[in-house]
Amino acid sequence: MIDRRNLLGAGVLGLGGAAAAFANPSSAPTIGAPAISRNRRRLNMVTTWPKGLPGLGEAADRVAARIAAMSDGAMEVKVFAAGELVPAFESFDAVANGSADMYHGAEYYWTAKSTAYPFFTAVPFGMTAQEIMGWIDAGGGQALWDELSGQFGVKAIQAANTGHQMGGWFRKEINSLDDLVGLKMRIPGQGGDVLRALGGSSIALPGGEIYQSLQTGAIDATEWVGPWNDFALGFYREAPYYYGPGFHEPGASLAVGINRRVWDGLTPGEQAIIQAACEAVNHFSLGEFTYQNAVHLDILTREHGVQLRSYPPEVVKRMAEAAWDVRAASGKDGVEKRIYESFEAGLKLMRNWANVSDGPYYAARAASK
Amino acid sequence: MIDRRNLLGAGVLGLGGAAAAFANPSSAPTIGAPAISRNRRRLNMVTTWPKGLPGLGEAADRVAARIAAMSDGAMEVKVFAAGELVPAFESFDAVANGSADMYHGAEYYWTAKSTAYPFFTAVPFGMTAQEIMGWIDAGGGQALWDELSGQFGVKAIQAANTGHQMGGWFRKEINSLDDLVGLKMRIPGQGGDVLRALGGSSIALPGGEIYQSLQTGAIDATEWVGPWNDFALGFYREAPYYYGPGFHEPGASLAVGINRRVWDGLTPGEQAIIQAACEAVNHFSLGEFTYQNAVHLDILTREHGVQLRSYPPEVVKRMAEAAWDVRAASGKDGVEKRIYESFEAGLKLMRNWANVSDGPYYAARAASK
Repeated sequence: MIDRRNLLGAGVLGLGGAAAAFANPSSAPTIGAPAISRNRRRLNMVTTWPKGLPGLGEAADRVAARIAAMSDGAMEVKVFAAGELVPAFESFDAVANGSADMYHGAEYYWTAKSTAYPFFTAVPFGMTAQEIMGWIDAGGGQALWDELSGQFGVKAIQAANTGHQMGGWFRKEINSLDDLVGLKMRIPGQGGDVLRALGGSSIALPGGEIYQSLQTGAIDATEWVGPWNDFALGFYREAPYYYGPGFHEPGASLAVGINRRVWDGLTPGEQAIIQAACEAVNHFSLGEFTYQNAVHLDILTREHGVQLRSYPPEVVKRMAEAAWDVRAASGKDGVEKRIYESFEAGLKLMRNWANVSDGPYYAARAASK
Repeated sequence: MIDRRNLLGAGVLGLGGAAAAFANPSSAPTIGAPAISRNRRRLNMVTTWPKGLPGLGEAADRVAARIAAMSDGAMEVKVFAAGELVPAFESFDAVANGSADMYHGAEYYWTAKSTAYPFFTAVPFGMTAQEIMGWIDAGGGQALWDELSGQFGVKAIQAANTGHQMGGWFRKEINSLDDLVGLKMRIPGQGGDVLRALGGSSIALPGGEIYQSLQTGAIDATEWVGPWNDFALGFYREAPYYYGPGFHEPGASLAVGINRRVWDGLTPGEQAIIQAACEAVNHFSLGEFTYQNAVHLDILTREHGVQLRSYPPEVVKRMAEAAWDVRAASGKDGVEKRIYESFEAGLKLMRNWANVSDGPYYAARAASK
């Protein structure tokens, strides 16, 4: 996805007026026990996504729609696409300083704030979608996430997952490690660090600029998400070799972040509604990405001549070696170290489980019938 | 899990009084726009689980807790463990006839009602957790499920997922197809049909009777769920060989079913709360099972001498062949045929996607570091 590392931290936002939540505690007397009163809330949600982007922009819209439906309209979340209220990569600062109430985005866009943020999205050779859900919800991840984001006045919740992300689109085949040396590729986060370790250069580009860069030869390759989102951006027209599996984002978790004062000012019922809206959308999006990626992989290969390729074993081996180093470099001390260690402990356990369950199951099913 | 095939359809329930929902539409005047009134609802939820069963009984409790929290207590769901209000396998009938409002259970327990029900839980060599989520939410599955359950006056929603289920516990190793001939194994659903096709016999036993049957030699083997739940029942003390991966339930989806008249009588906001509560719990449980299965696999192998085994290739091959036949036999005509065909179409697409994404990713990660 989009790399905002160099763009973060500007601090000054273009917003004149604060868009923080306001509550009108009802003064209406309710007669008789049955009626429950709800405050009205208006919340602004900025996002890192172009308007209506399949799966991701839609996830933000769905969180808002769920909150409105569950509260009978008492809570209203207005969603702003990237650039409408603040640029995509200023979403975190906008929420941290209260100019906006919530964001929907990828936590690894905030790597300039903390090198631990990628662990809450996806890291190379790291956790799959259901594994990161397991670490965050049951393996201690959420408490560490709360501690990290609490430093910036933000409360974060899982609110979409893309599932497995593909390795990317290449104009030329990758037949050896040599083919990566000097390769200019659009790839963000720790995945970009892995590519650099192998001699390539990772370029930061927002989604809307990738296609043209590929067309002009400014970049040789790009990753984005998976068949569903990649099809929409048309990369197959410029770079026919589609590499899978990807190793940089085995299951990218997206998040809602909420201004901590806004969150603390909500009633327990309002907090429960936002929490469930985010998690229900996380559930829905993982299924939707799994299905739509399958549908669009079929379209790409059958109708558009896309050539599926796998990285050669020596490339995979070196990528894996670099991945362990890159992850370790993100967790050297403080809360970053504790997050790194918790993530690695969870990964070790769940990898062992995957090695007797989902892993060999997929292999056996692939070989059957 | 528990096979209730022979027990279903009794029709007559032991309940004297109906436990259907009642609504007290508020007559309280609310002065001023901000306040939103909510009706009070009391709903009874029967379950197919022993009280507090890790992951599953807890999932039912969590759905209830989420509904209460999101409605500020206006909606209250009282959860009954198996046998408290009706026996586990009469849960469906209780909800269909309105003696209870909701159930939490596994849809394949209702196979006597329709042979299509296993497709909404798990079938041999079928969909993994994220794939069944994809089929139900994005691939047409929910509409077919609504049609199927609508025939019985029930509305069903995904409300937990165990992830991958292990092959089971065996007193003796399985070294060839011959070792399955005459094998007496507790295994329900289409998995049991596959075992029968290979010459074994599948026995129906509720969870609470499995251990003793294994101890006395009444059965030679049993499957249950995965390391987390299996550890709790202590099978490792009687049958040291633990086979994985399992092929009969690659990601078992559990469901909440609601009496259709009760559901239709709820406001859109109340329906949205129940829907999100179920899906948020589905999200949570898949992560929790993934993490807790990993933790308990580690405990079983390190502290209890459990021997992990894989089925020999010839056994896997024959299981797969039987699986395609068993699935086809469940969808011969009517809505069952349309469900079967929709499931197979979704499986074919998502299997192709898994074969370039999660499948080879797990294999490469297993081989790394």
